[in-house]
Amino acid sequence: MEAGRLLTERLLDEFIPSDNDDPQLLHRAMRYSVMAGGKRLRPILAQAAYEYCGGTSEGAAGTIHKAMPAIEMVHTYSLIHDDLPCMDDDDLRRGMPTCHKKFDEATATLAGDALHVIAFELMAQTGSIDVVLELARAVGTSGMLGGQMADIEAEGRPVTAEEIQAIHRRKTGALIRGSVRVGAILAAADSATLARLTDYGEKIGLAFQIIDDILDIEGDQKLLGKSVGSDTRHQKATYPAAMGLEESRRQAANLIDGALATFVEEEDNMLKWLARYIGQRER
Amino acid sequence: MEAGRLLTERLLDEFIPSDNDDPQLLHRAMRYSVMAGGKRLRPILAQAAYEYCGGTSEGAAGTIHKAMPAIEMVHTYSLIHDDLPCMDDDDLRRGMPTCHKKFDEATATLAGDALHVIAFELMAQTGSIDVVLELARAVGTSGMLGGQMADIEAEGRPVTAEEIQAIHRRKTGALIRGSVRVGAILAAADSATLARLTDYGEKIGLAFQIIDDILDIEGDQKLLGKSVGSDTRHQKATYPAAMGLEESRRQAANLIDGALATFVEEEDNMLKWLARYIGQRER
Repeated sequence: MEAGRLLTERLLDEFIPSDNDDPQLLHRAMRYSVMAGGKRLRPILAQAAYEYCGGTSEGAAGTIHKAMPAIEMVHTYSLIHDDLPCMDDDDLRRGMPTCHKKFDEATATLAGDALHVIAFELMAQTGSIDVVLELARAVGTSGMLGGQMADIEAEGRPVTAEEIQAIHRRKTGALIRGSVRVGAILAAADSATLARLTDYGEKIGLAFQIIDDILDIEGDQKLLGKSVGSDTRHQKATYPAAMGLEESRRQAANLIDGALATFVEEEDNMLKWLARYIGQRER
Repeated sequence: MEAGRLLTERLLDEFIPSDNDDPQLLHRAMRYSVMAGGKRLRPILAQAAYEYCGGTSEGAAGTIHKAMPAIEMVHTYSLIHDDLPCMDDDDLRRGMPTCHKKFDEATATLAGDALHVIAFELMAQTGSIDVVLELARAVGTSGMLGGQMADIEAEGRPVTAEEIQAIHRRKTGALIRGSVRVGAILAAADSATLARLTDYGEKIGLAFQIIDDILDIEGDQKLLGKSVGSDTRHQKATYPAAMGLEESRRQAANLIDGALATFVEEEDNMLKWLARYIGQRER
């Protein structure tokens, strides 16, 4: 995972304009947020799916090595906008001031927009219309953005377990699922493999967000690099609020088991390792 | 131009999800801003370039009819974010409350983001990687977003004529130029024609923003549907502020003449008509 993280950071550094290029302030804000650390889980998932599906290292430079930073830029842009005062109003992210705290709200809004568009530029540079469409669907109103909106609308009112699942599947799950699919598509996976990996991506995506909810209650603030308890303060719709910690843990574990079952009787691989990592993560 | 406007609005209606689809609030906000009127100049320019370059009506449905609403969605998203309190803080747009006034800031931020991503989805549906890249470059940090950032950075301090031209070329010019190029590329224009139309697009794009600056001083508030004098209040970098009204008018007229010269000894066409329209517009 360390190798994937370092590769992602090298690619991000390569594809975000230098802060010596105009407009310097905008590029500085983009770099600040993108380079503030993070697990780089989504690009690593895309790379693992690419390799699992037989994607070659010769083909990587023009394909998956463009998609990896693109996916991470989309993730970062969503965090920048999500942290804005009109949204979650968070001051800290990965132990550092959020973009609008470090710069200002206008710069943060534009930095998010700019990461969004560079992500599509990079995705198009793979030469595959299919992965551009895949990213767009993962981000759009039936994906991440729809989930963010539903998440805000659900604040402060009781929600059913079905509603929460639908929010989580979009808010976090869609981009994780999309990352896996992008890797598989770029490796020209056959449709049966793509369907299996889609199922895997859906399960780890939902598990990821359930565990996020759990960590917001009992996680270690230092490890997480953000304040815990913010879901409760914002009266967010979460799994533990709807069905308790115990049942949330059980469902997350079931999802991870289901994801691992995608690879029954196969030797160990990075996708299995990542599913286990998500199930056990502490940050 | 009326036919192009109606066509654009039909296509926008077709490609933005219904407000009966979840998340309803987000789709309502997107529709509200996109359907609030406007000249639809950019999609009409794209269509005119497509037809000028011999794009067929049979090929239109899968190509230019996707690109036209995509371009207008990008334009609308930029207005929604630009109107936010942290940016230009405008309450009125086309005679109606701006998106964050009608809804709220979080919804307006997400509605802008969602229009941004649907635009790329539609552009990818043309099947042409080239126009996806074209749109990305027009919007990115060396295009529209870079111009918006530079525009904000220039507020309240003296700027040179060169700086203003650089801001205007990106803030407004890049998307207008990009619209013309997208139409030409989708019609498979040869490189000489594409170069000529690029030059045309650059000239009308810059003229458009100079005239915008002039109208902000001496335009009719009712016709414009927004308050005049806001540039002066925000101490914006404008052509009239840098070189006076008279010289600004002269430069705009020169640019329009230059754009028309692209078509020397050709019979009248829609692109010529649109250049003249931009030179004479009152709203």
